[in-house]
Amino acid sequence: MGGDHAPDEIVKGAVLAVRERGLRVVLVGRRPEIARLLAQEGAAGAIPIAHAEDALAMHEGALASWRRPRSSVAVACKLIRQGEAAALVSAGSTGGVVATSTVRLRTQPGVLRPALAVALPTRPTPTVLLDAGANADAKPEMLVQFAHLGAAYANSAFGVAHPRVGMLTIGSEPGKGNRLARKTAELLAATSAQAPRLDFRGNVEGHDLLAGEVDVVVTDGFTGNVALKSVEGAVRFTLSSVTEALSSSTMAKAGALLQRGALRSLRGRFDSETYGGGVLLGLNGTVVIAHGASHAPAVERACQLAHDLTTGGIADQVRTRVQATARTTWLHRRGQAEEQAGRA
Amino acid sequence: MGGDHAPDEIVKGAVLAVRERGLRVVLVGRRPEIARLLAQEGAAGAIPIAHAEDALAMHEGALASWRRPRSSVAVACKLIRQGEAAALVSAGSTGGVVATSTVRLRTQPGVLRPALAVALPTRPTPTVLLDAGANADAKPEMLVQFAHLGAAYANSAFGVAHPRVGMLTIGSEPGKGNRLARKTAELLAATSAQAPRLDFRGNVEGHDLLAGEVDVVVTDGFTGNVALKSVEGAVRFTLSSVTEALSSSTMAKAGALLQRGALRSLRGRFDSETYGGGVLLGLNGTVVIAHGASHAPAVERACQLAHDLTTGGIADQVRTRVQATARTTWLHRRGQAEEQAGRA
Repeated sequence: MGGDHAPDEIVKGAVLAVRERGLRVVLVGRRPEIARLLAQEGAAGAIPIAHAEDALAMHEGALASWRRPRSSVAVACKLIRQGEAAALVSAGSTGGVVATSTVRLRTQPGVLRPALAVALPTRPTPTVLLDAGANADAKPEMLVQFAHLGAAYANSAFGVAHPRVGMLTIGSEPGKGNRLARKTAELLAATSAQAPRLDFRGNVEGHDLLAGEVDVVVTDGFTGNVALKSVEGAVRFTLSSVTEALSSSTMAKAGALLQRGALRSLRGRFDSETYGGGVLLGLNGTVVIAHGASHAPAVERACQLAHDLTTGGIADQVRTRVQATARTTWLHRRGQAEEQAGRA
Repeated sequence: MGGDHAPDEIVKGAVLAVRERGLRVVLVGRRPEIARLLAQEGAAGAIPIAHAEDALAMHEGALASWRRPRSSVAVACKLIRQGEAAALVSAGSTGGVVATSTVRLRTQPGVLRPALAVALPTRPTPTVLLDAGANADAKPEMLVQFAHLGAAYANSAFGVAHPRVGMLTIGSEPGKGNRLARKTAELLAATSAQAPRLDFRGNVEGHDLLAGEVDVVVTDGFTGNVALKSVEGAVRFTLSSVTEALSSSTMAKAGALLQRGALRSLRGRFDSETYGGGVLLGLNGTVVIAHGASHAPAVERACQLAHDLTTGGIADQVRTRVQATARTTWLHRRGQAEEQAGRA
């Protein structure tokens, strides 16, 4: 029921996911409305419906989780808890979905905080940026876990065997950045050699986000959200400046006519990939948050991503990685404390 | 002597600034080398030279200020302290120039920290983003001052009478963001009505950076640097994706030929404006840091900017604004403390 074009486009996307990709989907929301839309698609009875009488509004943020215990997102979480579903896909408000699913699915054992991961449109495989906004204030230990959550994502969804991890900061040399970034880099460097191995490549900067030189970029939710939206805004600004330039003279206009197809497909690629939404990692159940403006094809892709993450075994990977991380981080900290005590 | 194409392009740019714009310039660096380059430009003796035997290397960061007391930047600061120059222009390493000029020029009375400001290529006037990297860890009081430094910049350099100020965070509603952003927004909202008035427009997000809806965007140096480089990287990525798309088919290629001029001028606009370098605000003397890759026209523009800021009276504006800010911020804090004491 969430999204600017819900429930129509969500139902259409679900039908595509079932028909075109053979996925198994349950639609959650107001039964009569959904049944009518399914019938319109010639799919009456083809997709099971779980009734939810309420729905989050697009402007609702974190408090929605408490205000609306019977929202479609809350009911979908219940299906996961009961083992009737493995993943949740929503195009609802990011704040509302994050809050509701965090409260109702809880974090996997050992996970300090869930992180919102977004796939940036690099080639050949996307770069996973996390946290893109779930935690505005974070601690170094959380960011170390985010590195492992992101590695599990790159592996499950995109088949990257040994994901390269970078930490977002403001200089390429070690020791650059604010307090959080400096401590995180130190902790990542110290623990990445231990099992589960992490291919930590050190610092990356804002202009590396789309360079495709790492598979995972780790940062706190404040910086990550600002960086992601800066990228989105700059892409949009550049494309509209290009369009403007291409109609600046008769010659240029004539050229633009010849390229209409190429430019349209480029715009489509950025829309669907850059603005494709995010995945909330670290909960007991996979949560994919599609962009609010999603139409049916984006919903279909979000369902495929949820399926890929689940069959790629992201939950198991996160469990293994996080348990080991907690141990090594703790050992590293204890080692430092003992060293300091020894010196004193 | 600083910059990837120094000293050749720097000298050429200085000659342009003198000949084309009638500015008064002193060149600082190794005298024999500079005199030879001036002679090549047919300008022997036309521009005074201040000898500096040393120079910062492009990879040198903050420590350069201590290591190289006779660098060209250090000598240029000395000219300012002696009242022989009003502003400094360098294409040297940002870290080195920031550190050297902060140590040698000192902050204006009442200024907590200097801030690096960058002008983003919005229309009709640029948007000033600060801090773009001088202070990785900042406090709310510093950010309130940055708002006033940025307003003084927008006014002196671009003639904006009442600059609109936004604070960079991760949501448009008040109360969104990390601890620093939330406290800063509160302080800005509470003090902006007092003299010197600040037209505080509340929160802005990453995608608003190039939207031109505010004249000044305030943030800490970590977030600002990440955001700026994210924008730069995304612009570059999009332009190269456009170029790729425009040669994807014979039709598109034919179109691109007709547009060569329009696209080249667009690329030039982004290069010179987005990557144009920054201004270090709040010191006893104006410091313009041109991009390391600057050629003569960018150096010429940087000299013009230094001139505009100085004749626009930026130093006086900063002094007036900062003195008043210190008072109102302090009053606001005391008011809060008394209120809390009253409640207890």
